[in-house]
Amino acid sequence: MTPQPQTTALTEARRRRADRARQVADVLRHQVLGGAFGDGALPGESMLCRDYAASRNTVREALGLLAAEGLVERLPGVGTLVVSGKYGHGLNRLAGLAETLHEHGEITNQVRTLTVIHPPAVVARRLRVPDGEQVVYLERVRSLNGVPVSLDLTYLPQDIGVPLLGEDLAHRDVFVLIEELTGQSLGHADVSVEAVNADPHCAALLDVTDRAALLMVERVTHLADGRPVDLEWIRFRGDRLTLQTQLRRTTPAHLTATPPDSQPRAG
Amino acid sequence: MTPQPQTTALTEARRRRADRARQVADVLRHQVLGGAFGDGALPGESMLCRDYAASRNTVREALGLLAAEGLVERLPGVGTLVVSGKYGHGLNRLAGLAETLHEHGEITNQVRTLTVIHPPAVVARRLRVPDGEQVVYLERVRSLNGVPVSLDLTYLPQDIGVPLLGEDLAHRDVFVLIEELTGQSLGHADVSVEAVNADPHCAALLDVTDRAALLMVERVTHLADGRPVDLEWIRFRGDRLTLQTQLRRTTPAHLTATPPDSQPRAG
Repeated sequence: MTPQPQTTALTEARRRRADRARQVADVLRHQVLGGAFGDGALPGESMLCRDYAASRNTVREALGLLAAEGLVERLPGVGTLVVSGKYGHGLNRLAGLAETLHEHGEITNQVRTLTVIHPPAVVARRLRVPDGEQVVYLERVRSLNGVPVSLDLTYLPQDIGVPLLGEDLAHRDVFVLIEELTGQSLGHADVSVEAVNADPHCAALLDVTDRAALLMVERVTHLADGRPVDLEWIRFRGDRLTLQTQLRRTTPAHLTATPPDSQPRAG
Repeated sequence: MTPQPQTTALTEARRRRADRARQVADVLRHQVLGGAFGDGALPGESMLCRDYAASRNTVREALGLLAAEGLVERLPGVGTLVVSGKYGHGLNRLAGLAETLHEHGEITNQVRTLTVIHPPAVVARRLRVPDGEQVVYLERVRSLNGVPVSLDLTYLPQDIGVPLLGEDLAHRDVFVLIEELTGQSLGHADVSVEAVNADPHCAALLDVTDRAALLMVERVTHLADGRPVDLEWIRFRGDRLTLQTQLRRTTPAHLTATPPDSQPRAG
C-alpha cells in the first residue's frame, strides 16, 4: 500500500484493515460465486492469510463481510462454509426466469394477486392502453427449489392478460404463455437495473433480513411487432441472483438504431 | 384486488396496504427517475390518491418507501420533493464512467491507493499474469459534480498499469488511458451485476447510510485482441445509478459465438 497522510495511528490502521478486508472479500466472493469451493468449505484462515498476503484480522473481517451478505456461514471450530451459490441470470437475451434457471431446478410461483384493475395513467401510457381501459395485474413470489428468489409485479393489457387467467401461472413463465396465446414471438425489452433495500413486508415475503439489498429490474417487454405487452417490476434477492452480460466497446448493430421507446421515458 | 382468505382483519388490512403501497411506489419511482417531476415537487397526496385509486394511508406509505430509498424528501407543510434523479449507465456498450455521464457533469476521482502488489492467485489467473508477477492496484472514489457515486477497486497487469502511474487519474477514465497507451481499442468485457449492502466503512466513503443497497459490478475488460487488461469491482450507489439495457428474444449474432472466457469462471 502507498503511504497515507498520518491521522491517528489507530484510525489509520482500522481504515487500512477495512480497505484490505474489502479487497480480499471481493476476490473471495468471485470464487464463492464461481463455485471454486463447490458447496463445501473455504480454505482455513492460515491458508487465506498466505494466499492474500493478509493478516489474520483482515481475513476474518473479509469473511465477516461475506457472512453478512449471506454467502457464507462461519462455524466456530469448523470453518467457513458456502451457504449457497448464486444463480446467474443472463442479461444477453430476453428470457423468463424458469427458462433461464431450468438447469438449477424447478421454479414455482405463488400467485398472490391476479385481478383486473384501472391502471395508473403512467402504466396505461407505457402499455399503450387507452384511457379508462382496464389492465390485468399479477403479483407473484417466485421460488427456485422452494426458496423465494423474486417478487414480481406485472401489468398486462386486457387482451393479453385475460386469457392468462385460466393458465397454470404457478408453474409457467408468463413470457412463454404470451407467445403461445398470441402466436407471436416476443421482440425486445427495455430493462433498467437498480439496487434497493427491502422494505419490511417485502423482506418477509422473500425471507431476507430487513433492508437486505435487492436487485430491482424494471422491464417493458414488446411483441415482435413492437407492441408493449408486459410491464414488470421484479425484486430479485441480492444474495441469490447475479445478472451477467458481455459488453462490447463498439455498439452492436442491432442497438445503433433503437426504436423510439427504447429509452425510459418520463412518466 | 381479489378477495384473500381471511386471517385476522387487521393483519390482512396491513398486508394489503403494504402491497398497494409497493405497487404505487414502483410506478412513482419510474416517474421520479424518468424526470416526470423535474427536480421539483410531486403532486399532492389528494391528487396521487385519485391517480392511483389509493387511500391516503397507502399513498403516504408509498411516499415513505421512496423517501427511505433517498429518492424524495417529505417536508411537512411543503410536500414531497425530488432529491435527485438517478443517472442512467448504459449496459449496451462498454464505456467508462466519465464517458457515460459526461452530459450530467464532471467526474472526479479521489485516488485512495495506487500501488504495485503481489496479487491473489485468482486475480493473477483472471488477468493471465504469470505466477509471482506483480500487478498494479488502484482504488478510487468517483464523484459526479462532487457527489460520490462509486468505489472502484481495479487490478491491471504491470505493463498496462505502470505507465498509468504518471497519468491524470483524478480526471480521466482508465479505459481511455489504456487505449491511448496501448494504441489498441478495448474489445469486450464480461460483466456481473449484483446487489449488496454497504459495509460501514464503504458507506462512509460513499456518503450513504449503513447497509444501503449498492449495485456491485464485477467487470473483466479485454483489449480488442482478447487479452484481459482490467479487472474491477465497482460499487455504485443504488440511489444514484441505474443500469439500462435493451434485450432481444433472439440472441444477437455477436453473442452466439462468445470467446471461452466469456462466462465467469470458477476461481
